[in-house]
Amino acid sequence: MKSIPQRLSDIRSLMAQHKLEAYIVPSNDPHFSEYVADRWKCREWLSGFTGSAGTLVVTTTSAALWTDSRYFIQAEAQLKGSGIELMRMGMPGVPSIEQYIKDMMELSSTIGVDGRLFSVSEFERLSDALAPNKLKAAADLVNPIWSDRPEIPKKKAFLLPENISGMSTTSKLQQLVKAAHIHKDDIMLLSALDEVAWLFNIRGADIDYNPLVLAYAAVYYDKAVLFVDVEKLSEDDQKVLTGSGVHIRPYEEFEAFVERIDITRNVIINPRKTNILVRQKLQHRSVNIIEDRDANGTATSLKAVKNEAEVAGFRHAMELDGVALVRFYMWLEDSLGKETVTELSIADKQRELRAMSDEFMGESFGTIAGYRCNGALPHYSATEASNAEVKREGFLLIDSGGQYRTGTTDITRTVHLSTPTQQEKIDYTLVLKGHIALAMAVFPAGTRGSQLDILARGPMMQHCINYGHGTGHGVGHFLNVHEGPQSIRMQENPVTMKPGMVTSNEPALYRPGLYGIRTENLTLCVPYVTNEFGAFERFETITLCPIDTKPIEKSMLTPDEVAWLNGYHQTVFEKLTPYLNENEKAWLKAKTAAI
Amino acid sequence: MKSIPQRLSDIRSLMAQHKLEAYIVPSNDPHFSEYVADRWKCREWLSGFTGSAGTLVVTTTSAALWTDSRYFIQAEAQLKGSGIELMRMGMPGVPSIEQYIKDMMELSSTIGVDGRLFSVSEFERLSDALAPNKLKAAADLVNPIWSDRPEIPKKKAFLLPENISGMSTTSKLQQLVKAAHIHKDDIMLLSALDEVAWLFNIRGADIDYNPLVLAYAAVYYDKAVLFVDVEKLSEDDQKVLTGSGVHIRPYEEFEAFVERIDITRNVIINPRKTNILVRQKLQHRSVNIIEDRDANGTATSLKAVKNEAEVAGFRHAMELDGVALVRFYMWLEDSLGKETVTELSIADKQRELRAMSDEFMGESFGTIAGYRCNGALPHYSATEASNAEVKREGFLLIDSGGQYRTGTTDITRTVHLSTPTQQEKIDYTLVLKGHIALAMAVFPAGTRGSQLDILARGPMMQHCINYGHGTGHGVGHFLNVHEGPQSIRMQENPVTMKPGMVTSNEPALYRPGLYGIRTENLTLCVPYVTNEFGAFERFETITLCPIDTKPIEKSMLTPDEVAWLNGYHQTVFEKLTPYLNENEKAWLKAKTAAI
Repeated sequence: MKSIPQRLSDIRSLMAQHKLEAYIVPSNDPHFSEYVADRWKCREWLSGFTGSAGTLVVTTTSAALWTDSRYFIQAEAQLKGSGIELMRMGMPGVPSIEQYIKDMMELSSTIGVDGRLFSVSEFERLSDALAPNKLKAAADLVNPIWSDRPEIPKKKAFLLPENISGMSTTSKLQQLVKAAHIHKDDIMLLSALDEVAWLFNIRGADIDYNPLVLAYAAVYYDKAVLFVDVEKLSEDDQKVLTGSGVHIRPYEEFEAFVERIDITRNVIINPRKTNILVRQKLQHRSVNIIEDRDANGTATSLKAVKNEAEVAGFRHAMELDGVALVRFYMWLEDSLGKETVTELSIADKQRELRAMSDEFMGESFGTIAGYRCNGALPHYSATEASNAEVKREGFLLIDSGGQYRTGTTDITRTVHLSTPTQQEKIDYTLVLKGHIALAMAVFPAGTRGSQLDILARGPMMQHCINYGHGTGHGVGHFLNVHEGPQSIRMQENPVTMKPGMVTSNEPALYRPGLYGIRTENLTLCVPYVTNEFGAFERFETITLCPIDTKPIEKSMLTPDEVAWLNGYHQTVFEKLTPYLNENEKAWLKAKTAAI
Repeated sequence: MKSIPQRLSDIRSLMAQHKLEAYIVPSNDPHFSEYVADRWKCREWLSGFTGSAGTLVVTTTSAALWTDSRYFIQAEAQLKGSGIELMRMGMPGVPSIEQYIKDMMELSSTIGVDGRLFSVSEFERLSDALAPNKLKAAADLVNPIWSDRPEIPKKKAFLLPENISGMSTTSKLQQLVKAAHIHKDDIMLLSALDEVAWLFNIRGADIDYNPLVLAYAAVYYDKAVLFVDVEKLSEDDQKVLTGSGVHIRPYEEFEAFVERIDITRNVIINPRKTNILVRQKLQHRSVNIIEDRDANGTATSLKAVKNEAEVAGFRHAMELDGVALVRFYMWLEDSLGKETVTELSIADKQRELRAMSDEFMGESFGTIAGYRCNGALPHYSATEASNAEVKREGFLLIDSGGQYRTGTTDITRTVHLSTPTQQEKIDYTLVLKGHIALAMAVFPAGTRGSQLDILARGPMMQHCINYGHGTGHGVGHFLNVHEGPQSIRMQENPVTMKPGMVTSNEPALYRPGLYGIRTENLTLCVPYVTNEFGAFERFETITLCPIDTKPIEKSMLTPDEVAWLNGYHQTVFEKLTPYLNENEKAWLKAKTAAI
């Protein structure tokens, strides 16, 4: 196996051939997925750094890797001896990638990237930032030197039946054609895997955690082309697609298709979701390009509003997930002190218990089990080195989720494994108050998440406490656990909440070195009341799992907050008991008892 | 006196001479002031409609006037027989001005405006909207036909001493030069009257309610020119200005100055605050134009953050205003049933009581006294026709404010003049809860008003109630009662709250046909705590006047809310008693008693 310095040397030779003074390798795949298949882990292969986020810059004389604070320690260890300098993003004195490149080389240098790995928007932003240097969408320089590069995943894919998707591909195509104004001479190109999965009711296993299949699509006024490895689909599923007016072509044929689009066509692309190479191919032949009217992606905005079948599926998935979690927390209480329980074994146990359901398709993301001070790291992921043994002391934070055939779950609970201190109770109750404030909120139609965010943060802010992440993200229907376009965060996002959207509610409080507390449920936006003051909406909490009542300082809760918690627990008990044996019922009865 | 049809006929003749197919007359003055001097009431003179907001469009064959719902009834009456069609803005089927013009005339028509009355931004927006017609910054066509047009106001002006302004003009010029990056070859032009008033510590009486003097300014790296009628200033004040490096030139000379700016200069303008004629004059001579780096106006953003002397002045003004209001509400309680009290006599009485202070310089806006159902109109202004007699029944809403030499006030109180019903108590208490939530809020540095807004609306929203205006606006220091750049509203505004900003807190609830409730105090943003979670700020309420406790449904308040109200009332009592006689003290003691 070649060493990292050898790999860097190889790529520098190729850079010289291509007359490039620098080459930038991001962590993306050509679909800009949150998780990428091994095939596209070019940055990892070239640098040796295995974290999920990072960008490598190779110049003729230097190499540097930018990553964020989650990965500083890991990256430092993995980059040792590679000759690659670690750039700790956000730290004082650390240059941006643009600044580094501009400092390192003469003006009017040419910097290359693999055009497939940069969206139009990101390429343009970087290009402006690097001027007067030239940014070039060059070839994939890693491919020729990566001899044992993994193949494109070939996992089986399947279609969701209409009783789960709630809408046929034919209907979704009609919906998209209308919403995106796809006229007779137009073709809309889709690259985002979750947009394609939604549109064609197709799910796969090409990517970790996200049930996606590698594919592109071209949507016409009256038909569509799905670029996917046909061998992934059963013959029955192929027939269903063909019957919906979908032409199936090989995944690899997409670029050739773009190159042959009739020049009388108008091509609709979303610059944030389409790679620069696609646009350059179209521009090269002077094909008229139209930007997607919806900056977030028309398909993404349609997908975010769940239909009745999808909502019913979410509810069903919440029951299955709740049952697994009841069993998990029973096991945890029982096992602590009897056997060795660790952060990693907790993740294994949750997976095992969720998998008892036939409908479980895998985890929706890597479980975060953070014991005591590890819980204070919001994006903590236990490794063999960090793996803490869990004892009957302090807080344990577990953030996990499942992909079920009918919906996706994402839940965080923080439980106290001993007798909470007063400070722990205050902190825990502040998070709960924030969670409940958002859960109970009534708001006018047209409200943005940035307006609602302070409801969740408010109780903590009154104590001069805040948390450094968003309060809520959209969740896909048996799709990506993080999806747009809505969000609930301090930053402005013009997207408004709409009935049918599923969004997380996850305020948190982190005391570095001590503990982290996060209480997360998923919510469904629902219409509420229309009166002379307008139309009002609210959230319905759909996650079903008890919230630990032991660390609650009840004197800090208002009667309304107590009523919400007791009502929620009653719902949890009622919805989960049909699935439980007597032992489990008794346990849940106690956990959901009114406070 | 010419009739309206005669005036329209006259202007059509001038339009023909200027080859214009339409002419648009807005309600602005050349400084884009909220209130305009009579001299610039061209739209009023030409149409006969006296409301403060409206735009008149005259075509060769028609005329129409756009105004908002506040003025529908008034405009209908005043436009009768004028031949001008009333366009009720916001009503179904009512075209926009652009649409109306495009529908009325052939494409490639030329539409004229007085370029002095359109900002660069507004002219460009309208120009785009009217294309392919041509929008032309033509001459002032009203002037030649308005024979008895009022002169430019010539009211006396004066300089604020430094113990009130807190900062000399020399220092403010240095501050502006630095913040706006005014370099050696640059000239920044200022047209907004409140920016000029702030920069030169000058106040006047040319405009109703706003203590402004008509002026323009040009700011250089090391000096400034103030375009103002020198006769408005005392010789002493002229000397102070001259001593600060300020050249005083006649107001009328500003345009000639712009026409003679050396072409080697860069001219900095704010397109929202500078009229299109100024820019055209510069462009005509190819003078390099730079846009103000701050879209809200660098001077406006500096002005919004009050210095220590300004804050002290606000506090003093609040005491004077509070004393006047104590006397007013005592008078009101005493007079009801004894003498005839009307909405208009209330406004007179408040003015009279405020004027008992030597430091009172006038009202900061026209008093809104809305009795019972009149209070449900948020922008109500009593007229002889609408003027209601106030009796010992139901709610009375009074929104008023004063200009004091050391600060500006703006306060709304709603008092119940009889025994409130349960519904009235609930509504009143919801507004109070919203007011207190914002008054008590702690928030991270960098928080925008749009994030805070829901704190004030939240209690009402939980009852599916909302109000159709903002929650808070900036307030000038003995300047405009409405000033930017900050705001607290549902709409996004990227401006963040900063310590030193004075902003109103005015949630409200309107039951059309029944009553309106609004509780408004002014707040000062102050630093609070800096800890491991960051820097936190909060509001300090600076208005001093009891809040009616009679309509409070105490069971709806949390202990924290009760504590805030009692603490506020204690402060009001302590700050105002030094000014009060024994009778007044006893009254205030009762009104501020803890609930």
